[in-house]
Amino acid sequence: MSADTDATRDGTEVKTADAHDLAWRRLSSGIIADCRVFRVRRDVSVSPHRGSEHDFFVLESPDWINIIPLTQAGEVVMIEQYRHGSEEVTLEIPGGMVDAGESPQAAAAREMLEETGYAATREVVSLGKVRPNPAIHNNWIHTFLARDVSLRQKPVIESTEHTVVRLVPLADIPRLIADGSINHALVVVGFHLLMLSGQHLTE
Amino acid sequence: MSADTDATRDGTEVKTADAHDLAWRRLSSGIIADCRVFRVRRDVSVSPHRGSEHDFFVLESPDWINIIPLTQAGEVVMIEQYRHGSEEVTLEIPGGMVDAGESPQAAAAREMLEETGYAATREVVSLGKVRPNPAIHNNWIHTFLARDVSLRQKPVIESTEHTVVRLVPLADIPRLIADGSINHALVVVGFHLLMLSGQHLTE
Repeated sequence: MSADTDATRDGTEVKTADAHDLAWRRLSSGIIADCRVFRVRRDVSVSPHRGSEHDFFVLESPDWINIIPLTQAGEVVMIEQYRHGSEEVTLEIPGGMVDAGESPQAAAAREMLEETGYAATREVVSLGKVRPNPAIHNNWIHTFLARDVSLRQKPVIESTEHTVVRLVPLADIPRLIADGSINHALVVVGFHLLMLSGQHLTE
Repeated sequence: MSADTDATRDGTEVKTADAHDLAWRRLSSGIIADCRVFRVRRDVSVSPHRGSEHDFFVLESPDWINIIPLTQAGEVVMIEQYRHGSEEVTLEIPGGMVDAGESPQAAAAREMLEETGYAATREVVSLGKVRPNPAIHNNWIHTFLARDVSLRQKPVIESTEHTVVRLVPLADIPRLIADGSINHALVVVGFHLLMLSGQHLTE
């Protein structure tokens, strides 16, 4: 059994060295489809282990954001929205794409206001970022928390995004994830990051 | 302010009625790219609110699975793997696609054995399923838990997937997510479902 197939107990400590050993070199690259919210790129890359060439498909997108708007009464301002991938209406937190030249934080505050009509009196705070799916996506999704939000305006109804606002007690979220009422992976990640931060417990 | 832009306090109870109102009708549909692990489909659908037509891009894939292998010593059997989307090595739990005619549970046990060489003495159990991203994906990802796993064989090294096995104490997982060492959204979801199930606490 070679060193790199041995199970070791050193956790992530040797990650940098492994990253070097595991990384493929890209030989060629080209866009094969432009799907508005993402572009499909085809790479030909060389295996660091065999020297063989393989093609890989990558979805190029700007970074995404998610935001958890919390009212003073401890409710999450959520939205229901028809999703064309699953062909279902999903219960979500507000989210979207970071525009060119925009910070993730500004994008989060903007999407919250557009999709729900709610705005925060305090600055929205970062809960961290994750890779939506590093196998096929090249971007990050940043999650933010907005406390003390209140209704300021009507949601902006766009031609392709019609949202219905729902106030859901934060205490109900674990049950709604467990029973499948909330099933969007990136929304589940948002609530996990909130829980890890401990900020749902503080004022 | 119309009924469907009002914030209401009834949580998800009226979801079925809204799902009907929010659903688009698909006019036409066609595959525009076959990228091996997914196919890109273009739909033209009709807005239920405006009657206008818009195109949407959907990634068609078989369902995916993730599995959390736990040793008797309370360690998670994880893998490091180069990911062509993020161009980074990520720390993940075993996972992959459900083959044609295969159950998600069988796929999970198979991927665990292939990618780590570990197998369970007990049946693997479901922790639930979520939508990887219902905006663009049509599939589900199912998460499983395998307890009392032990090393049975060498991992299977495929031409495009070279994995390095890491034993990580389950107690370290929250810190590794918080500090970004684990940043794959679907892996974070797996650990969230484990936590919600309470099965990490039982024998």
